[in-house]
Amino acid sequence: MKLLEDKILKEGKVLAGDILKVDGFLNHRLDTALITELGKDIAEKFASSGASLILTVESSGISIAFAAGQAMSLPVLVAKKHKSLNISDGVYTAPVFSFTHKTENTLVVSREYLSSSDKVLIVDDFLASGNAAMGLLSIVEQAGAQAVGFVAAVEKAHQGGRALIEKKGVKVYSLACIKEMRAGEIILD
Amino acid sequence: MKLLEDKILKEGKVLAGDILKVDGFLNHRLDTALITELGKDIAEKFASSGASLILTVESSGISIAFAAGQAMSLPVLVAKKHKSLNISDGVYTAPVFSFTHKTENTLVVSREYLSSSDKVLIVDDFLASGNAAMGLLSIVEQAGAQAVGFVAAVEKAHQGGRALIEKKGVKVYSLACIKEMRAGEIILD
Repeated sequence: MKLLEDKILKEGKVLAGDILKVDGFLNHRLDTALITELGKDIAEKFASSGASLILTVESSGISIAFAAGQAMSLPVLVAKKHKSLNISDGVYTAPVFSFTHKTENTLVVSREYLSSSDKVLIVDDFLASGNAAMGLLSIVEQAGAQAVGFVAAVEKAHQGGRALIEKKGVKVYSLACIKEMRAGEIILD
Repeated sequence: MKLLEDKILKEGKVLAGDILKVDGFLNHRLDTALITELGKDIAEKFASSGASLILTVESSGISIAFAAGQAMSLPVLVAKKHKSLNISDGVYTAPVFSFTHKTENTLVVSREYLSSSDKVLIVDDFLASGNAAMGLLSIVEQAGAQAVGFVAAVEKAHQGGRALIEKKGVKVYSLACIKEMRAGEIILD
């Protein structure tokens, strides 16, 4: 999606540790007009998916998933990230490792809000190694629901997450795909 | 705001520890249509505030702040919650204690995105004891910016947060105000 690609090329910054900083418009400071357009683009791509629910994970995925939910007239389910495994009953859980923060968390979703009749479109800000995606897909599987797609605003193609998701038969769509990053240089796919 | 009040009376649940559970539409599962309307209501109330920026805190405040930002054509700045005090340079920080989770966190905002020329509308999901509000107001003060208002989707009036904010000369607006809660009963103000 050209709008997002242009923004990344203009304002994205490459930090040490293969980290793309987009916190001026996507993570920390939210460009509401831009993110609203991302939502519309996602809605267009998945118009015929039959999705009944959007699933994301706190906290950077929320605004993008919300904008998609608005555009598709769907509710958004936000998986919570817990530090501990001391979780109450009535929930689906999945472990997830964050490479950025070097921490292991547990994703938690109430069983009450996700059932076997749901067709789930997963939306997150980044797709890199696919760790968060695998956690979210595990939760969809535990519910006996169907994942109709995985959307990332930004994909870091060289980190291999896409293949893991596609191996499960789930369609992947990224609004901007980064092929390579070097200090001061971002190369789009 | 009648739409939210009706939803709380119909679907809100009172849990032990004076906790109001609204996770079917505001926290965990997001009712995108409802939250979009909350954003419009906030925009209407603060149309003449001259706000240049909306400030919220991850993660439950994000969707409401985002909807308000859309309706007001403003960016949203999301204060991050860190567990540790090991914070990098270039940020404003404020300690904040969560009564729900019984944990102390540090709110973190990049100096880059908040300056002394900003007029800041703070938006959060809950106002109870006012702890998060005080942390966010401290960050606005550190930046030398002006707080033009504090908005909570839900106020728990009996916990005293409003007085703390008003003492700082900041206008408080809640979309639904709860006077009292008992098991199975919610009394609105």
